[in-house]
Amino acid sequence: MNTYLVVGSNYISQSEILASKLSAKVLDIHRKIFPDGELYVRIKEPEKIRGKVVIVANTLYPRQNDSLVETLLLIDAVRHNNPSKIILLIPYIAYSRQDKIFLPGEPISAEVVLKTLSHIGGDCLITIDIHSPKSLNSFNGIAENILVSDILVEKALRYVEKPIILAPDKGAIGRAKYAAEKHGLEYDYLVKQRDRITGEITMIPREITVENRDVIIVDDIISTGGTIVTAAKLMLKQGARRVVLATSHGLFIGNALEKIKASGIVKLLIANTLGTKPNDPLIEVVDVTHRIADAITKLIGKSG
Amino acid sequence: MNTYLVVGSNYISQSEILASKLSAKVLDIHRKIFPDGELYVRIKEPEKIRGKVVIVANTLYPRQNDSLVETLLLIDAVRHNNPSKIILLIPYIAYSRQDKIFLPGEPISAEVVLKTLSHIGGDCLITIDIHSPKSLNSFNGIAENILVSDILVEKALRYVEKPIILAPDKGAIGRAKYAAEKHGLEYDYLVKQRDRITGEITMIPREITVENRDVIIVDDIISTGGTIVTAAKLMLKQGARRVVLATSHGLFIGNALEKIKASGIVKLLIANTLGTKPNDPLIEVVDVTHRIADAITKLIGKSG
Repeated sequence: MNTYLVVGSNYISQSEILASKLSAKVLDIHRKIFPDGELYVRIKEPEKIRGKVVIVANTLYPRQNDSLVETLLLIDAVRHNNPSKIILLIPYIAYSRQDKIFLPGEPISAEVVLKTLSHIGGDCLITIDIHSPKSLNSFNGIAENILVSDILVEKALRYVEKPIILAPDKGAIGRAKYAAEKHGLEYDYLVKQRDRITGEITMIPREITVENRDVIIVDDIISTGGTIVTAAKLMLKQGARRVVLATSHGLFIGNALEKIKASGIVKLLIANTLGTKPNDPLIEVVDVTHRIADAITKLIGKSG
Repeated sequence: MNTYLVVGSNYISQSEILASKLSAKVLDIHRKIFPDGELYVRIKEPEKIRGKVVIVANTLYPRQNDSLVETLLLIDAVRHNNPSKIILLIPYIAYSRQDKIFLPGEPISAEVVLKTLSHIGGDCLITIDIHSPKSLNSFNGIAENILVSDILVEKALRYVEKPIILAPDKGAIGRAKYAAEKHGLEYDYLVKQRDRITGEITMIPREITVENRDVIIVDDIISTGGTIVTAAKLMLKQGARRVVLATSHGLFIGNALEKIKASGIVKLLIANTLGTKPNDPLIEVVDVTHRIADAITKLIGKSG
């Protein structure tokens, strides 16, 4: 056995499937919370790590700060046992939307997260569909952003016919284009417009008309669901036949799920990137572990 | 104005008193928690910082992980505005008791905290009575540990006469010795012993006898209060007249306060180092801000 998996609390449910796809072994971790609230982690049988590739896997939702600290402690525990390499697998990186200074006096929180992860000992990082791939420059080492929109769209194709792939704005076009090209579909992004008569803000595709067409809206995160639900409703209003949503990370904050259910969408596909699992017949959780395993295998091969 | 204070949630209650002692200005911070649980901070009027000394002050109890992340975000926000120097004031450093690998496979959590604080941008660090001063080597920059046991003992002298200063174990003797020497008092540390008849574990001072003497037990942290309460009870059992406790950081986890109240101690003195403030007539919270202000002033003077 040459590869070991050290798994944080939010990713435990995915650890066995990942281990089997990688022919890796999951190391037992003793975890507890002290009465004062401090986390404690300990790798059992740490002597196995020496000279081996260790994958530290955790995802930073829910409880972003706790899971970040847990991840740092796990990395440090691994580091003290002389692995040949520490690969971080963090499918969802918290604070990734604070990827620049929008207003003077703000931090760049995404950079803070990525800098701490590499400084404490992560040699490489694999993540899924980070909000802004440019943020990964803050990680001091190889950092790979895996897109899974093609996998989500493939599943979505069971619910729609010859759909248009739409990004909710220009900045999000990358993952829509990626999925569309893989499946030979048309794609476009939505542009905000003010209705000349009512003054109301609306969204329309830049070039394509959605009338009588099926639509798949592709985005990275569903948080409170505001933008994407509005987009779905507007596409139906503009004559789209069926609307399906495909997003990598399904956080479903507050009443997001109710809003989505009331929006008229046919199906919502999300990847299994978080420590939570929504339970609703409208939602299909798509396993993307094989894609992660491929990326890790390639990374290990590349670096020896 | 040449010095600015950027204060984290746990330290807000102390910010004005510190600012007045330093002739510094507290910068307004916009803080919120996003619906998904992520923290947001923004320094208002960040342009004031340029070229100035900025003190980022926070203390890492309660909510250790949240306050650590908040501190990192504040440091990053400051850093982007080109201060001449970032001094961190963290009176209580979370995870400081995990200061070495006690069992194979553990992290050195204290190092993780200190490394992240310096890596994100802290140039110097001031803390109060850290569990193990050696941990401060992990901070990449000047790191100063301020003892306050002499201040606590000074206040304690109102409740006792010619007391013996006792540390609960050999490792804790430093702060007891420091206070004792400042006030010209005897000091000693407690040694665990097994009673030859009953087999029970007891604690006795290494050299001094406490019979008919007043005692001040000096320690760094009261968490669940286990050790220090046992020590207090044993001193009374060994004939001590009055026992007072003097500890830097009063966490009071679980039923610690009840245990302390039932132990027979006369008074408990703690420093104002945490974001919590116990409310009990047995406890006196001692302001140590003047000592912090002196250390910061010296640090600014030293480094220009």
